[in-house]
Amino acid sequence: MTTTQPRPLPSDPFPSDLEIAQNTPLWPIERVAARAGIGEEFLEHYGRTVAKVDLRAIEALAGRPAAKYVLITAITPTPLGEGKTTTAVGLAQGLEKLGQRTVLALRQPSLGPVFGVKGGAAGGGYAQVLPMEKLNLHLTGDFHAVTAAHNLLAAMIDNHLHQGNALGLDPHRVSWRRVIDMNDRALRNVIVGLGGTEDGVPRQTGFDITAASEVMVILSLAVSLADLRARLGRIVVGYTAAGEPVTAEALGAAGAMAVLLKDALKPNLLQTTEHSPALIHAGPFGNIATGNSSVIADRLGARCADYLLTEAGFGADMGGERFFNVKCRVSGLRPAAAVLVVTVRALKAHSGRYKIVPGRPLPAELLAEHPDDVRAGGDNLRKHIEIVRGFGVSPVVAINAFPSDHPSEHAVIREIAEAAGARVAVSTHVAQGGAGAEALAREVMAACGEETDFRYTYDLADSIGTKLEKVARQVYGAGGIELSAAAKKQLRLFEKLGYGAFPVVIAKTHLSVSADPKLRGAPTGWTLPVRELRAAVGAGYVYAICGDMRTMPGLGARPSAEGIDLDERGEVVGLF
Amino acid sequence: MTTTQPRPLPSDPFPSDLEIAQNTPLWPIERVAARAGIGEEFLEHYGRTVAKVDLRAIEALAGRPAAKYVLITAITPTPLGEGKTTTAVGLAQGLEKLGQRTVLALRQPSLGPVFGVKGGAAGGGYAQVLPMEKLNLHLTGDFHAVTAAHNLLAAMIDNHLHQGNALGLDPHRVSWRRVIDMNDRALRNVIVGLGGTEDGVPRQTGFDITAASEVMVILSLAVSLADLRARLGRIVVGYTAAGEPVTAEALGAAGAMAVLLKDALKPNLLQTTEHSPALIHAGPFGNIATGNSSVIADRLGARCADYLLTEAGFGADMGGERFFNVKCRVSGLRPAAAVLVVTVRALKAHSGRYKIVPGRPLPAELLAEHPDDVRAGGDNLRKHIEIVRGFGVSPVVAINAFPSDHPSEHAVIREIAEAAGARVAVSTHVAQGGAGAEALAREVMAACGEETDFRYTYDLADSIGTKLEKVARQVYGAGGIELSAAAKKQLRLFEKLGYGAFPVVIAKTHLSVSADPKLRGAPTGWTLPVRELRAAVGAGYVYAICGDMRTMPGLGARPSAEGIDLDERGEVVGLF
Repeated sequence: MTTTQPRPLPSDPFPSDLEIAQNTPLWPIERVAARAGIGEEFLEHYGRTVAKVDLRAIEALAGRPAAKYVLITAITPTPLGEGKTTTAVGLAQGLEKLGQRTVLALRQPSLGPVFGVKGGAAGGGYAQVLPMEKLNLHLTGDFHAVTAAHNLLAAMIDNHLHQGNALGLDPHRVSWRRVIDMNDRALRNVIVGLGGTEDGVPRQTGFDITAASEVMVILSLAVSLADLRARLGRIVVGYTAAGEPVTAEALGAAGAMAVLLKDALKPNLLQTTEHSPALIHAGPFGNIATGNSSVIADRLGARCADYLLTEAGFGADMGGERFFNVKCRVSGLRPAAAVLVVTVRALKAHSGRYKIVPGRPLPAELLAEHPDDVRAGGDNLRKHIEIVRGFGVSPVVAINAFPSDHPSEHAVIREIAEAAGARVAVSTHVAQGGAGAEALAREVMAACGEETDFRYTYDLADSIGTKLEKVARQVYGAGGIELSAAAKKQLRLFEKLGYGAFPVVIAKTHLSVSADPKLRGAPTGWTLPVRELRAAVGAGYVYAICGDMRTMPGLGARPSAEGIDLDERGEVVGLF
Repeated sequence: MTTTQPRPLPSDPFPSDLEIAQNTPLWPIERVAARAGIGEEFLEHYGRTVAKVDLRAIEALAGRPAAKYVLITAITPTPLGEGKTTTAVGLAQGLEKLGQRTVLALRQPSLGPVFGVKGGAAGGGYAQVLPMEKLNLHLTGDFHAVTAAHNLLAAMIDNHLHQGNALGLDPHRVSWRRVIDMNDRALRNVIVGLGGTEDGVPRQTGFDITAASEVMVILSLAVSLADLRARLGRIVVGYTAAGEPVTAEALGAAGAMAVLLKDALKPNLLQTTEHSPALIHAGPFGNIATGNSSVIADRLGARCADYLLTEAGFGADMGGERFFNVKCRVSGLRPAAAVLVVTVRALKAHSGRYKIVPGRPLPAELLAEHPDDVRAGGDNLRKHIEIVRGFGVSPVVAINAFPSDHPSEHAVIREIAEAAGARVAVSTHVAQGGAGAEALAREVMAACGEETDFRYTYDLADSIGTKLEKVARQVYGAGGIELSAAAKKQLRLFEKLGYGAFPVVIAKTHLSVSADPKLRGAPTGWTLPVRELRAAVGAGYVYAICGDMRTMPGLGARPSAEGIDLDERGEVVGLF
């Protein structure tokens, strides 16, 4: 959900995403729910085409057979993304065409970037989640609820400092920032508490985008309202001078935060262009957070169909690895197959011969027929096939076809995939919807018919260092890891505080399987530099910062907001 | 909606507001809508008991006879508030008991203060708007939409400065701050843009609470989506070095802001404890903004009943004056009567013999039988009766009865009101619901049967200075006004820029009809000190700052958030 299919070529008289969205008659949401076997008694309507699903539906449907659970992931993407969301939507529609009841579980897109470079993020062409305007704007308010809960805790921290600081929180060791669902670089680093004695305690802090909030991750991992409440209470906002952690529970904030999130914990039901049920729920950042949609939506969806498809952010090394090692561990669900989305342009980029810059047209040379360039980038595809196999899951390579592709280029990808023993299919879902994804759907069904031997990369009993090392070596192909002095100190502290049994999230660039965004293909022998360790105690993981991780985007010189407006009929224009 | 009925006395085994709310079976919202004559085709459901009403309903119902339009206002309140919302709700229910179809149009409460001292704000006892939990939390996300639209403009301002400042906006003259719906004093004064060259331009600014946003006022005054869009475009965010105003339109932000607010412009339909329809829409601050609910909800409600009741913030001098001079001018609706809510405790406080402090128990002496103290505070009631009469509208005095009142004290209020020629009734709606408000309902019906001679305090063609002077003298009873040197300069600038034809909003204390919160009763001969003038060009008014106006509350030493939580069943507790 973090990327969009690029516009079709100018020569192609293909309608825009917004035109397709606005011209697709939507089903009433209760009809979509019925397709998923969810009775109307479990729906809370938000307009005619969106509903929240009551969590009691999960228990009520527990007797149903479990859906086959399929991850949609990708090779190392270009900065434009390679179309995981469109592929997930297209595949759902393709499976439906083959008579398989299918439910999608996807992340909710972040509001902020809609006004930056992206426009919208709800799939593309005839493989969209609808209503795309709601999806890209407020939807049912879940992100706003996360923002409010996060910032309530922040306000209670600063109020605690102001009112005498009974807990002895060290103002220099408060790590809880504020969040806003907006691309606003001026808020990255701020000083708050200026004014007079009535205006709080001055200190330096900052704002992240809401998707980077630990509260968002908690929403995505909680298995029940009680679990949500307990995780919120465990959030560590900082430390005392003596090094004791201070929690949201100790500040008295966790109950009110849970109240703010009570409705947000219910998954949102929408539909695809061809009326497949789509559960859209939570949207943690793909770099420093988990990059996966919610466990609770997956648990619901798993009882609602023959196939449950979910997507993880960035490549199989990023959101994919966290899907297997973090999300599946919490949910208890076992994947039957993983779809690896690949594009001609991405493999060409992995040849090292092209540079793709977001917001600029693709180089003309990249669009010309160059099967050798595709071949030259093939290592990256081979590496991702291997990553998926490492988890004991069958990979299915999905060639997400673009109008500018050439048959000779698709043939090279097919050859690489087959040589690596993976199933492969070309998918034209953006232009053709489900009909364009039938070949892919057949391969996915075949893969799901095979035995799986699902396994994690590490045991929770491994030390934090061992977990990091195992992911770096076994998933990324690194030669080893190197912890900074600060990271070593944090590691000792976290082990002492009992965070050693948490899984790990490695925050590194998504533009390479390595930690260096400039390294294309499948580099080996490099060292993963762990600059800093942080603990998301409420969410329940330790994360390792390996490089510059931006947690608050900015707007560009020509933000897309400038083109977004209402027309004379009051309809939205410029959202695409 | 800004205040709550205080808890009943400990000796009284009266259930809490939350208990009453959670034990009142709600009607499906379509049944409530039917009571207002709004067909299901105009409803957008948000759960089973809340719906937004499509704006097309206003045109569709235009042929219906207009409801009698009644303002609920009050004498100068104590810091606790005197129960306007409960009285409005009770009166609606009382009118229904007398066979009069009645619709309420009220402000949406602000989320932030729920976690501060207040708990909730949805009426009280058996005169509540329900579902109170939704009303006090996110409702349908309108406040979040205002926050997002406001902060998008802020992000685009700082981005404009960062990207080269083509419009020549003077960073020192940017008056557009950011907003958040949270009591967070540490955000009152902040420095943004710290970090490095990629992190924006450092400058001092701050955050207000969302209710103080000009966008909130625009939402409350817009008569259509097109009007909303145009008003957003006219927002002035600051000035160039040459003194030229810079607008949201020039920054390219207004279209995207309108898109964010498209759904928020639709009024929200809820119900009272006795299932009367309640349109809850917009919530501008009562001090620096207009303090009135939306024009669009009133225009809708005016075609949906025999009586349309609306409430304005604080006393008749504050929200009441703005209701008559600003809101009615925009809406074109004409009030038939005004209810003046009065309490025994408030008149006792106006005697100057007691001090009421929010968060502390009332002084025991104030609760004892002291009709003479009530009489000693009578000037304030007489003054407010006169204020309402000044607009050519019949006042009806509503004695909002408390368990601690004494019949002798009610008798004194009745005597004062009748001597001033006003209708008067005791109302026990909090304890008894509509049945307790029947006497009041009869007086209101009688008042609405009289001829009205509605008039504004000033003409739009008057100069800004004249408008301020007329309100100060004719409404407040001031001897005159005094503009600071800065205000005089701003006045000349605003006249030059064409803002001279705007109505005015005077931001003064609500705790006195004067500008001095310590002056009780009905002081005269004082001078209104205008410290500063500001222009809300999008909303369309000039406001005069007369005293310290807090636009961002803080949390107290024991914020109510600490007591708010979920119980074992997942139900909200501590919200009252």
